[in-house]
Amino acid sequence: MANVQDHPFQIFNTLSRKKEAFIPIDPPHVGLYVCGPTVYSDVHLGNVRTFLTFDILFRWLSYLGYKVRYVRNITDVGHLVDDVDAGEDKIAKRARMERLEPMEIVQKYTNGFHDVMRLFNILPPSIEPTATAHLIEQIVMIERIIANGYAYAVNGSVYFDVPKYARTHDYGKLSGRKTEDQLSNTRGTEGQEEKRSPLDFALWKKAEKGHLMHWPSPWGEGFPGWHLECSVMSTKYLGHTFDIHGGGMDLKFPHHECEIAQSVAADGVAPVHYWMHGNMLTVEGRKMAKSEGNGFTPEELVTGNHKLLERGYSPMTVRFFMLQCHYASTLDFSNAALQAAEKGLQRLMAANGILAKLKPGTEGTAFDVDALVKACNDAMNDDLNSPVMIAHLFDGSRAINGANDGNVALSQADIYQLRKLFNDMLFAVLGLQPEAEAKAGDDLSSGLMNVLLTMRADAKNRKDYAAGDLIRDKLTELGVTVKDTKDGPVWERA
Amino acid sequence: MANVQDHPFQIFNTLSRKKEAFIPIDPPHVGLYVCGPTVYSDVHLGNVRTFLTFDILFRWLSYLGYKVRYVRNITDVGHLVDDVDAGEDKIAKRARMERLEPMEIVQKYTNGFHDVMRLFNILPPSIEPTATAHLIEQIVMIERIIANGYAYAVNGSVYFDVPKYARTHDYGKLSGRKTEDQLSNTRGTEGQEEKRSPLDFALWKKAEKGHLMHWPSPWGEGFPGWHLECSVMSTKYLGHTFDIHGGGMDLKFPHHECEIAQSVAADGVAPVHYWMHGNMLTVEGRKMAKSEGNGFTPEELVTGNHKLLERGYSPMTVRFFMLQCHYASTLDFSNAALQAAEKGLQRLMAANGILAKLKPGTEGTAFDVDALVKACNDAMNDDLNSPVMIAHLFDGSRAINGANDGNVALSQADIYQLRKLFNDMLFAVLGLQPEAEAKAGDDLSSGLMNVLLTMRADAKNRKDYAAGDLIRDKLTELGVTVKDTKDGPVWERA
Repeated sequence: MANVQDHPFQIFNTLSRKKEAFIPIDPPHVGLYVCGPTVYSDVHLGNVRTFLTFDILFRWLSYLGYKVRYVRNITDVGHLVDDVDAGEDKIAKRARMERLEPMEIVQKYTNGFHDVMRLFNILPPSIEPTATAHLIEQIVMIERIIANGYAYAVNGSVYFDVPKYARTHDYGKLSGRKTEDQLSNTRGTEGQEEKRSPLDFALWKKAEKGHLMHWPSPWGEGFPGWHLECSVMSTKYLGHTFDIHGGGMDLKFPHHECEIAQSVAADGVAPVHYWMHGNMLTVEGRKMAKSEGNGFTPEELVTGNHKLLERGYSPMTVRFFMLQCHYASTLDFSNAALQAAEKGLQRLMAANGILAKLKPGTEGTAFDVDALVKACNDAMNDDLNSPVMIAHLFDGSRAINGANDGNVALSQADIYQLRKLFNDMLFAVLGLQPEAEAKAGDDLSSGLMNVLLTMRADAKNRKDYAAGDLIRDKLTELGVTVKDTKDGPVWERA
Repeated sequence: MANVQDHPFQIFNTLSRKKEAFIPIDPPHVGLYVCGPTVYSDVHLGNVRTFLTFDILFRWLSYLGYKVRYVRNITDVGHLVDDVDAGEDKIAKRARMERLEPMEIVQKYTNGFHDVMRLFNILPPSIEPTATAHLIEQIVMIERIIANGYAYAVNGSVYFDVPKYARTHDYGKLSGRKTEDQLSNTRGTEGQEEKRSPLDFALWKKAEKGHLMHWPSPWGEGFPGWHLECSVMSTKYLGHTFDIHGGGMDLKFPHHECEIAQSVAADGVAPVHYWMHGNMLTVEGRKMAKSEGNGFTPEELVTGNHKLLERGYSPMTVRFFMLQCHYASTLDFSNAALQAAEKGLQRLMAANGILAKLKPGTEGTAFDVDALVKACNDAMNDDLNSPVMIAHLFDGSRAINGANDGNVALSQADIYQLRKLFNDMLFAVLGLQPEAEAKAGDDLSSGLMNVLLTMRADAKNRKDYAAGDLIRDKLTELGVTVKDTKDGPVWERA
């Protein structure tokens, strides 16, 4: 464990637009909030990348010795069709189409989201609060904002008064957008006629006739605006000002900008010290989107059942592939890159397997294990630079293979240190999992097949064709076919 | 699928204390509510049995062709230490002990509960609502009860007026308890001095100083009484009157009795047509309880790591064991019974495996497959009599084994019908799972080992000891040891 008193961990803070030493408010505690999924459809791979980014942050902070309270919400109401607050509530719309209770849809996609997180070994957060479980707190926060003069009720809805707030505060500080630019981009949509300014956003919306999800409030039956829930849930569980807030880059504006404005307007303090934003996923250079036909699901990725996929890739291959790119860079998804990641992961796992049995030696060139350990830690401390850390592990794996071949000298202490390093970095920090247990059986099968194929080759060599045929027939009974190729026999099971 | 218009399904209704034809309010829809776990500690095996009972109900109703909306709640606040509403909120108490945020505890045990449900292949409900997500609805229901004259506010708390309700309604109808008996059993505990009668129960409790979970309400800061949440969540998602309400027998009084009173007092209608209660689990004749030292966890059961367990049992063995007892009977947990269940399950799965390859025959005694299918359906329709249904499947498995030996005549049509029956009953209705996929690899290994052991035996027979030793050496390299026993060679892998 590093000495966290030295603040070795550097975070690129989207708010200051520079890398800063991470100094928590109340060490060893760290408060971390991440915007979770809206559960009205299946999670897509771009979401998986975002949650993986903050999974690595959670793991790295824990590895450094911090006690992290990690809150990641579930948006189960109030996410409007467009982000200027007009249009229909997405969940309710889907509900009427499917003639289902909205909460039945929410449950289905919440379960699906959890399945996907488990598939990719993304750890559950400490608290996973839902918007509908914090309606009273949302109403109370709106009342505070109104009392402070930064919101107004009209016709059963409540809007945040952006121009008034912007006169005395830097609205646009996080996203870098000026209010004049924001203004020119607004569109005339539902609710605009009620707002004093097109910049204003809804804190509470009146429920129109037929709207399925609504609750009583001081302003009548309605539902909360989408931006509000994160302000309420982050500060309820982490305090009015907390350490780190994360999310996908697309949430910077308006969602996170609005969160800051809401907190400042209600409580007079900026809610977050460090803002972190994960970058997007593209597919062969194009943005991943259902409308583009390149938005495959995690399941399709694993089965390979999609026209853009040459074959399936294991969840751990996908995880490793994503971690070979820095979270703040765009990541492009291609079959070639996935296949390279698959081989790379196998190489690291193989080196880790060799380590378990490696004997110390004094022959060969020297290798500086201390430097490797330091390099790996430095990389992760440098704004979670997992690709650089992985590159260092490859250096380590070359040394391990060299030692196994007798070309690199590793002492017993070196080997112990490498075992700890590989174990920590591969499993605790990168969160990779050893191959599934099903493989254990397969490995034995491969071993037994090799014995039988050797015996078959021996029989052929001594021209005992009956023995060779007997082996072939027995294998056929088991559904195993053997083909002789120029590289030797190859077998597969029907 | 049965013709549900005939109402073939009979339920023992705890309310009427007799078996009744199940006639849903709005076919093909069925509304089912089950009291879920309180997530302040690990789920125990008695809970697992209760949730398994209603999993079978959910599966059977779906199998009959009903569209079931299954609501099972999570109690994340308000479950008091004793059921007469006094004492400290259990979750908050634990939170202060562990110096954790209550919702962090809730999250931990909710995750653990879901893991256990998945382990035993208990299906997720359609909606899994939490008490904290329905506080507004709870406050609104209390206001209705007060308006109708059946509750009163005192000192920041609200109590249900049981004597007033009992004057015009049958309080005790479900549990069969008379109010006089209830009265003599009450104890002097916190809050009693505020109540007009010791029979009264809390709808809302004022939060005392230091209480961690509380919300604003018309009566001040507080939290809802435990009985209220189920009344709110069941009627919100299923309507003021719905089909079936289930839970463990220990919830009949006061919890379910209070639910009826709350609904009648608020909305003037009884909430439930059919009440169903699952029976308890004992261990070697004694009630399972942590204080008795016989309350092992699902994990201990699977690993065998508990002094009362001779060894571990697979989740599917435990599931099958529980289903071999009718839900309304006490089930006693013993190693002997589990081992018998394990063998029984293997027999049924083996018969199902034989069915897949069975060829029709005309030799041997006849077997009436139609009668078997009818008997299985009749058993399940008879108040979910799974033990009788399983006994019929054993009859079927004997016929299948007989046909495989050429002693029982089964036509191709018989075989098709048996395949469908076994597939439906074992997997869809009883919810058993085939052995884990890891077995697939093991099966190939077993097959390959058999080939090698046969070749080794052949080599011995022709006194080719070199060949026999070669096979043994190769197997040793793979970590496989072979022992020759009087029943033939037995192998195991290190």
